[in-house]
Amino acid sequence: MATQTQTGTRTEQWYELAQQLRVDSIRATTAAGSGHPTSSMSAADLAAVLIANHLRYDFDHPEHPNNDHLILSKGHASPLLYAVFKAVGAISDEELLSLRKLGSRLEGHPTPALPWVDIASGSLGQGLPIGVGIALAGKRLEQAPYRVWVILGDSEMAEGSVWEAMARASDEGLGNLIGILDVNRLGQRGPTALGWDTRAYAERARAFGWRAIEIDGHDLEQIERAYSEAEDGGDQPTLIVARTLKGKGATLTADKDDWHGKPLKQEQAEQAIEELGGARDIVIKVQPPPPVGAHGVRPSLGQRGEGARRAPLPSYEVGAKMATRQAYGEALRALGAARPEVVAIDAEVGNSTFSELFEEEFPDRYFQVYIAEQQLVATAVGMSVRGFVPFAATFAAFFSRAYDFIRMAAISRANIRLCGSHAGVSIGEDGPSQMALEDLAMMRAVGGSTVLYPSDAAQTARLVEAMADRSGIVYLRTTRASTPVLYGPDETFPIGGSKTLRRSDQDVVAIVAAGITLHEALAAHDELAREGIAVRVIDAYSVKPIDAETLRVAAREASGGIVVVEDHWPEGGLGSAVLEAFADGTDPLPRVRLLGVSKIPGSGTSAELLDACGISARHIAEAVRALREAH
Amino acid sequence: MATQTQTGTRTEQWYELAQQLRVDSIRATTAAGSGHPTSSMSAADLAAVLIANHLRYDFDHPEHPNNDHLILSKGHASPLLYAVFKAVGAISDEELLSLRKLGSRLEGHPTPALPWVDIASGSLGQGLPIGVGIALAGKRLEQAPYRVWVILGDSEMAEGSVWEAMARASDEGLGNLIGILDVNRLGQRGPTALGWDTRAYAERARAFGWRAIEIDGHDLEQIERAYSEAEDGGDQPTLIVARTLKGKGATLTADKDDWHGKPLKQEQAEQAIEELGGARDIVIKVQPPPPVGAHGVRPSLGQRGEGARRAPLPSYEVGAKMATRQAYGEALRALGAARPEVVAIDAEVGNSTFSELFEEEFPDRYFQVYIAEQQLVATAVGMSVRGFVPFAATFAAFFSRAYDFIRMAAISRANIRLCGSHAGVSIGEDGPSQMALEDLAMMRAVGGSTVLYPSDAAQTARLVEAMADRSGIVYLRTTRASTPVLYGPDETFPIGGSKTLRRSDQDVVAIVAAGITLHEALAAHDELAREGIAVRVIDAYSVKPIDAETLRVAAREASGGIVVVEDHWPEGGLGSAVLEAFADGTDPLPRVRLLGVSKIPGSGTSAELLDACGISARHIAEAVRALREAH
Repeated sequence: MATQTQTGTRTEQWYELAQQLRVDSIRATTAAGSGHPTSSMSAADLAAVLIANHLRYDFDHPEHPNNDHLILSKGHASPLLYAVFKAVGAISDEELLSLRKLGSRLEGHPTPALPWVDIASGSLGQGLPIGVGIALAGKRLEQAPYRVWVILGDSEMAEGSVWEAMARASDEGLGNLIGILDVNRLGQRGPTALGWDTRAYAERARAFGWRAIEIDGHDLEQIERAYSEAEDGGDQPTLIVARTLKGKGATLTADKDDWHGKPLKQEQAEQAIEELGGARDIVIKVQPPPPVGAHGVRPSLGQRGEGARRAPLPSYEVGAKMATRQAYGEALRALGAARPEVVAIDAEVGNSTFSELFEEEFPDRYFQVYIAEQQLVATAVGMSVRGFVPFAATFAAFFSRAYDFIRMAAISRANIRLCGSHAGVSIGEDGPSQMALEDLAMMRAVGGSTVLYPSDAAQTARLVEAMADRSGIVYLRTTRASTPVLYGPDETFPIGGSKTLRRSDQDVVAIVAAGITLHEALAAHDELAREGIAVRVIDAYSVKPIDAETLRVAAREASGGIVVVEDHWPEGGLGSAVLEAFADGTDPLPRVRLLGVSKIPGSGTSAELLDACGISARHIAEAVRALREAH
Repeated sequence: MATQTQTGTRTEQWYELAQQLRVDSIRATTAAGSGHPTSSMSAADLAAVLIANHLRYDFDHPEHPNNDHLILSKGHASPLLYAVFKAVGAISDEELLSLRKLGSRLEGHPTPALPWVDIASGSLGQGLPIGVGIALAGKRLEQAPYRVWVILGDSEMAEGSVWEAMARASDEGLGNLIGILDVNRLGQRGPTALGWDTRAYAERARAFGWRAIEIDGHDLEQIERAYSEAEDGGDQPTLIVARTLKGKGATLTADKDDWHGKPLKQEQAEQAIEELGGARDIVIKVQPPPPVGAHGVRPSLGQRGEGARRAPLPSYEVGAKMATRQAYGEALRALGAARPEVVAIDAEVGNSTFSELFEEEFPDRYFQVYIAEQQLVATAVGMSVRGFVPFAATFAAFFSRAYDFIRMAAISRANIRLCGSHAGVSIGEDGPSQMALEDLAMMRAVGGSTVLYPSDAAQTARLVEAMADRSGIVYLRTTRASTPVLYGPDETFPIGGSKTLRRSDQDVVAIVAAGITLHEALAAHDELAREGIAVRVIDAYSVKPIDAETLRVAAREASGGIVVVEDHWPEGGLGSAVLEAFADGTDPLPRVRLLGVSKIPGSGTSAELLDACGISARHIAEAVRALREAH
């Protein structure tokens, strides 16, 4: 790529660079025939000064541990980010013009397909919360010199998740976190609620403990001063509130309605580019990050996936009673001792999820986000960006609060481990608001996810260990009530496997269960055995991926069919997973009967509710008898 | 119930009432053996003055349109609410002591099983957002005199959803909304982030445009003054920030750690009750609401479910092309003309979802919540509480942001209609952050929900009409791209039905599709027909409930099996719905092949992505051929 040498004052150089970013945003989107040039143009001056004089980043070595982090939270302004990557010499002009085409790394919204992109953005209000996670790692785990720059749009300030992050950042004293708020006044369909009231944004930020600096986002020297001040943030995060014009730089688009998410037509683009001073090929040299060793330590990088450092896990006596949620805490604590890269995050329920056992031993690697589940997951994603192995836990029902963050984390290729406790009606008296009955469906429908549901303490401990080595979104469902230990210390539980706990040559029906219902299935087995009815019992602790082979064998051998029983809605959970295992078109499906929770429960004891909801041993036995008779 | 006459000054009377609320909170939880007495005791003074001197409510007529709304957002303090219901004579002492027992209306967290409870609470941070919806209805739709009182806990102020509501309330000038913040300093596992820093809460509230009043939450006269001031709120919502002691009133529990969510043991309870002055049976007379007719109008109540007022729906020519999202907007506008109770809510994407067509005609019944999807759903729930028929729309992917609100709305028995646009990879260039690939799984796994997925404009219009008369959580999935109109104006589309579009006596395989993939299925049919392979094509527009009978017939008649194809993850969506339809244990299941999106997509054109993800006509035809050969 032909590069251009810059002359003139620094302000003139920044101006030229910003104009190039605008021109390239227009060029890329016009070539693509879709995209967001005007949302890019408003923030071009902010981006230009940032990369020219403040960002510290080695674009040849995106893995450099001291690189700053640059997060484009307003991900629809991806053309600006890609124009930046061209301006720093990271991508060619040709690649810039591949925007939004099949197979291009330059997707409609940024994803880590590009090595300089930490996370996928495009669902608004996620950049700052994840930035908090990265900044937390830098400050508390790594004592590293990197800074986290987050470019935000004004529309996304309406997302509550931004305010979860604002509260957390100031409470944690994240002086290494700098938000750059592009107040261009115009949302997708018209003016935002606050318009150009930069004072209102600044006051809200200050009330949340931030330093706020109001500037004209097109005044390059004001931008420069604001960044310099922000870099010296001490223990306080800084929000730069920049008044800008959407579509700035072209008469056609500047501060005009109805230009959101629209490319300029070829002729319009040519005119705008001319007005912007034409195309340029400036390539700037970005400041390098501080050398490694001079600052900070990174206990984790390069350690993930080693797996060899097996933790001495807690062991449990068969028959003893313990809740799987407690075993989660004990296993996590054991894992923490063996692996310094393991961190835990709590949303103020650590005494219920048993995350607190980890906190007691490793307070430095424990993060409290209070009742803010979006920030819970975002913190885990941020830690994953820095190579740590995060475990985040709350009540399983409350992960529904963070579903969009989980969905996006998969697109970010984040490696996060989530533990949801208090699953299903078996929690008892607290009632339906606290009962997860949708979490298996929700977590299964995440790209590349893993879903685990242990039935006893020993299995839980082994699965927690396996989670640490598993990439992607890994979910563990735990149970509130104590359950008897079923498995000895030498049992293994590979992800994708299952355990057949009861089996005979006379099995007429197979019962597939997991977690709390496995114990009901075992009781049903005994009840039926007394009637001379032999049933197989399969513990499907790995809900996704499920052990399709064992299910197929069971379907062949127990020809009466399969009963699946789960403490979950009948839609999308374990039952669906079992059915889907047969849905590759090779064989007809077996006769299957699903037992799940089919109406909204109330309060009651665990046993009462399991029975009232049709998933107790009695109901399982009845379903087996019915299948057998239909056979 | 024996009632007690109160004597003394008003302050003395309030004191006695508050002590009774504390005593009853203890008695109920000790009888239950679980629950949250201390979280109840901190707010007892706040509740006592409220019901004695400010709440306007006819407890004999909870349906009275001018009743105030009292929302206990900190739902774990349900014993306080139930003690209030006893103190106003609404429930007996005997019922109070049924707390948390199977079949009792007094669940662990409040639900509308009790007629004085508007919404289920217990997932923190939802009361205020829903209160905003109710207050909006009161101010903008009904011009009604009721006020909305929301009792909040300090822990839940960490939830971003609270700040979505704070921003919305001030922007809408909701002087009829009063938040009562019980700052008892102690969360579930220890101190909150802000402790007793009531100033910080007040400053945040003021920065978000609220009036804030800091008080001692145990000083009855201060409470009285704050409520009086709040009632005169003009156009500004008020937050009363009350410093309190968790467990106030008993030495054992007051401001003590480790008393969250724990009942007192019998002996402890007796001692605490003695300290609180013993049990009382005060029954107070609550101020009545203003008489009907004196204020306000309620255009909606009593009109839901009439159904007879059929809207003249837009009609479409078969073969013409139109996106189902546009047909949604057109149908909603038509519905709005026929039914004054229909309202629409937008999260700043009304020009993408086509909600804006409703806005153009009925701006008074259109609510803009900006980019705040939790508030989007909460506003719908609030409108439902007031008997309106709300339709809330955003990109389908972004409903994942509000999943906890949708889950809880089902427990609230709310009647809300949600429309998610831009489903699946077929949206094209914008990339995976904007593609809903989990919405069918998510929405199916909601108690009592309905899930609809139209393939053309005519069907969309009819389904939108049907949604208005449907109770519960009703979800409609629409498509970004234009698709040809398949159905004539006289076709009907009952919920729970399907349409068999291609059928012959020679069908060897049945293809089940919906929405965008139905068009691919039709193309596959034609391709296969050219090869002499007859296939049935079923339009499963009603994903939940699904038309199990038609599927069973298809399985019998097209004995090669069923191909299900969907623009969604293979987990939990249409494919699962089809499989589950066969999972009642009565018959052996057919051979089934599921085609869905199995890896995270990138950008590209709609056609490129449908093909790259294995759900285009070509892949469907291949799957049919494979099934036929396996047969």
